Amino acid sequence: MKEFAASLETATPREGVDLAARLAWEMVRKVQPSKSIRDRLVVIYEDDAETILMACQIIATNFQAIAAANNYWRD
Amino acid sequence: MKEFAASLETATPREGVDLAARLAWEMVRKVQPSKSIRDRLVVIYEDDAETILMACQIIATNFQAIAAANNYWRD
Amino acid sequence: MKEFAASLETATPREGVDLAARLAWEMVRKVQPSKSIRDRLVVIYEDDAETILMACQIIATNFQAIAAANNYWRD
Amino acid sequence: MKEFAASLETATPREGVDLAARLAWEMVRKVQPSKSIRDRLVVIYEDDAETILMACQIIATNFQAIAAANNYWRD
Amino acid sequence: MKEFAASLETATPREGVDLAARLAWEMVRKVQPSKSIRDRLVVIYEDDAETILMACQIIATNFQAIAAANNYWRD
Amino acid sequence: MKEFAASLETATPREGVDLAARLAWEMVRKVQPSKSIRDRLVVIYEDDAETILMACQIIATNFQAIAAANNYWRD
Repeated sequence: MKEFAASLETATPREGVDLAARLAWEMVRKVQPSKSIRDRLVVIYEDDAETILMACQIIATNFQAIAAANNYWRD
Repeated sequence: MKEFAASLETATPREGVDLAARLAWEMVRKVQPSKSIRDRLVVIYEDDAETILMACQIIATNFQAIAAANNYWRD
Repeated sequence: MKEFAASLETATPREGVDLAARLAWEMVRKVQPSKSIRDRLVVIYEDDAETILMACQIIATNFQAIAAANNYWRD
Repeated sequence: MKEFAASLETATPREGVDLAARLAWEMVRKVQPSKSIRDRLVVIYEDDAETILMACQIIATNFQAIAAANNYWRD
Repeated sequence: MKEFAASLETATPREGVDLAARLAWEMVRKVQPSKSIRDRLVVIYEDDAETILMACQIIATNFQAIAAANNYWRD
Repeated sequence: MKEFAASLETATPREGVDLAARLAWEMVRKVQPSKSIRDRLVVIYEDDAETILMACQIIATNFQAIAAANNYWRD
C-alpha cells in the first residue's frame, strides 16, 4: 500500500472516494495485520452483500472527513 | 456509471439524494469491482430489508456530506 | 411521495423528524424502486425490532443534516 | 408522548440525553405507528443486548445534534 | 452512576473517552431502566465481540461530540 | 497501552489512523476491562470479517474527530 498522501487533499470527489477506500483498507490492516488472513477473507466474502456494505459504510465515513478536508471541493 | 460531477453541488435536496446514491454505488464498485458479482447480489438481495437499509445508511452518510457541501441549500 | 421541499427548512424539530423520515423513505425508493417489493417488506418486517431500529438510525442520520440546515432551530 | 420542545435546547447534557431518547422514540413511532406492535416489541426485546445497543446508537446520533444545538453547553 | 458533569468539558482525550463511556451507559439505562436486566446482560455478553464493538461504536459517537465540545483539546 | 497523547494532534493522516485505532482499543478496554477475555476474543475473531469491519467503523468514527482536531492536516 503506497504511503498515502501526507494530507487528505484530492482534486475531485472521485479521488476523494478513492482515498476514502484506501484509508479504509489501512484501517483493516491495523485491525488485522496478517496479509494471508486478509487475502483469505477477501475471497470468502467477495459475494457477501452485508460485508461489502459494511466496508462501504467505513468508506462513506472516511469520505465525510475527506470532503470536509477539501472544503467539499467548492474552491 | 457516468462520471459523477467534479463537485458535490446539486440544485435541490432531491438531487442531493440522487448524488448520494450514486456515490454509494461508486463505493460498492470500489469494494467489489466485478460487475457480474454485483449484478448477482442485486438480484439475491432485492427483497432483503436489512441489506436495503444498510445501503440506505450509506446513502444517508453521503447525503450529510452533500448537504454540507451545498450549505444545506440555504442560499 | 409528494415532491419534498426544495430545501431542508422546517419550522420545528418535530417537522425535522418528519422530513428526515421522508428523506429516508426516498432513499429506500432509490435502492429498491419496486413498490410491490417495498410494500411486501413493510408487512414482513413490521414487528422486526432490528429492522425498525435500522430505519430509525437512517432517520437520525438525516435528522442531523436537517438540524444543521435549520441552525438547530435556534433562530 | 408530550409534544417535545419546539427547540433542541436543554439546560444540561443529562437533559440532552433525555431529549435524544425522546427523539429516538418519536422516530420509532414514525417507522411503526402501531402502539400495540411497539409495546409487544419492547417486551420481547427487553433483554436483547443487540437491540438495546442499536437503540442507544440512535440516541447517541441524536445526542450529537442536540449537543451542537446547545453549543455543547459551553455558554 | 454519579451525576455526570453539567458540561462535556474534560481535561484530556482520555477523560473524554471516560465521559463518552459514562454517557453511553446513561443511554443504556434510558433504554433499559431495570438494573437486574442490565446486570444479567453484562454477564451474558461479556465475551461477545459483536456486542462489545457495538458498545464501542456508541462510545466513539459520543466521543465525537465531547471532542468538539472541548475544541479537540487544542486550547 | 502507553498513555496516549494529551491531545489529538498528529503530524499526518497516517498517524491519525494510528491514533484512531489506539483510541478504539481504549474504548474496548473500557467496555471489557478483562485482558484475558480481550486476548481470547482477538484470537477467536481474527478471521471474522464482520467483527474486523465493525472495529474499522469505530476507527473511522474516531478518525473523523482526529481529522477535525488537526484541521484536516491543511496547515
